[in-house]
Amino acid sequence: MRADGVSVTSIDTIVDGVHFRLDTHSPADVGHKALATALSDIAAMGAEPGEAYVSLALPSDFGDALQLVAAMEALADRFDLTIAGGDVVGSPMLTVSVTVVGHAGDPDSLVYRSGAKPGDRVGVTGMLGGSGAGLVLLDGLDHVDVPDRDTLIQRHLRPEPRIHEGLALARTASAMIDVSDGIATDARHLAERSGVRIEIDLPRLPLAPGVREVAAALERDPYELAATGGDDYELLLTGADATDVTWIGRAVPGEGVALLGADGTPRELHGFEHG
Amino acid sequence: MRADGVSVTSIDTIVDGVHFRLDTHSPADVGHKALATALSDIAAMGAEPGEAYVSLALPSDFGDALQLVAAMEALADRFDLTIAGGDVVGSPMLTVSVTVVGHAGDPDSLVYRSGAKPGDRVGVTGMLGGSGAGLVLLDGLDHVDVPDRDTLIQRHLRPEPRIHEGLALARTASAMIDVSDGIATDARHLAERSGVRIEIDLPRLPLAPGVREVAAALERDPYELAATGGDDYELLLTGADATDVTWIGRAVPGEGVALLGADGTPRELHGFEHG
Repeated sequence: MRADGVSVTSIDTIVDGVHFRLDTHSPADVGHKALATALSDIAAMGAEPGEAYVSLALPSDFGDALQLVAAMEALADRFDLTIAGGDVVGSPMLTVSVTVVGHAGDPDSLVYRSGAKPGDRVGVTGMLGGSGAGLVLLDGLDHVDVPDRDTLIQRHLRPEPRIHEGLALARTASAMIDVSDGIATDARHLAERSGVRIEIDLPRLPLAPGVREVAAALERDPYELAATGGDDYELLLTGADATDVTWIGRAVPGEGVALLGADGTPRELHGFEHG
Repeated sequence: MRADGVSVTSIDTIVDGVHFRLDTHSPADVGHKALATALSDIAAMGAEPGEAYVSLALPSDFGDALQLVAAMEALADRFDLTIAGGDVVGSPMLTVSVTVVGHAGDPDSLVYRSGAKPGDRVGVTGMLGGSGAGLVLLDGLDHVDVPDRDTLIQRHLRPEPRIHEGLALARTASAMIDVSDGIATDARHLAERSGVRIEIDLPRLPLAPGVREVAAALERDPYELAATGGDDYELLLTGADATDVTWIGRAVPGEGVALLGADGTPRELHGFEHG
């Protein structure tokens, strides 16, 4: 759409029963989430949102498509994104695919997953574990006193793409990825694409308020929950310096990811079930 | 991806049981069809294929994703299209979304649905009714002697996007659309967007070989089948002159679509069931 600069494009799909559940998500939550997850990829490249193309595959008894689209448009407006096209088809299962095009002035201003070098620090924006804890709360734990219950649930239902943070961090980051599967998995993608080993100090992870209480109720380590809970859509990056980032580890020669406990020894993590 | 010219983008989605059926379509047929239908939109704008972004929502027991992707790549190669990105997610129902970006040297070389003017002739590329007849044959009529049976079935399973035709016709066409729902419906889209009435002479429709025999077996008018059978993916256009086009009608002042019989009077059509 623009004649100057470069563009990047990302496509993301969410499916009822796999990435969300209509018994816990309103149609508006689904619309928001579909666009937010697609925008999160654009954020991780340090690009400015440009246009989105939306495919809605709707069950014949799904009556709230307008609410779904309105929530998508509200999120688009906040980031000056234009929903420029779409397609609506019938489907037994609500499925939303979003293709987002982002723009940058020149290729050098973009960040990829492949630029991490030994010696880089590893940082993360915001706080972790909130979405995973919110999902646990959506499914139960009604008897547990969690002061930030509603915030955690909203964190799961309405993830926030870190567009502004991505644009700012792209100036100094050597590599970046959004935290969609949990940092344990997403750090592995960075390590593989960059040809480095990434060490993460679990006790340094910035826990979202309430994660500690939810983890206690599940008799789980809160830092393990934060490392394996997905859908936080924060940005995981490598670099030498940046503001508004929590430094949680380092890139070293080698391969793979090590998650280190308080005593500096690697920990085996158990997966955190999430939807 | 390119710094010069303009780009157009289209997103299309096909769903098992709605747009195709896995009991009649191989995984390779599905991959071909998903990309072909998306490319057809690019063809109708007179743009050159650029990049595609593919979302595959796959059931856990679907084992032939590689065949699906290979058929998509084979079609992409034929039109110098780059499959530049994708997303694979789990889903109870096989669903394929394809976003295709097309390019043109300047905006004036593109054709839209809105440019038809009273006095324009209405034309169509290729032949009609083949895909609809092929679908009928896939579902039965084994006892009927149809000489072009396999060609008709292939026409349904492996539609051909009219990319080269679209680029050539864009030089002179005032408006263009691809025939995905049948010309009765697609002509209505052209008429509405252009603010004209479109008259189509049913006896002028170019029937694909075998359509006459299939229509006879169904005791239907072959021209009605050709006008209402979808998925032909030919191009319907308006303009003053063009080669390799069958002229089937005209744009006149007014609104809506009239399908005229041999005696020049409007005919009420009955829908042609298609998947």
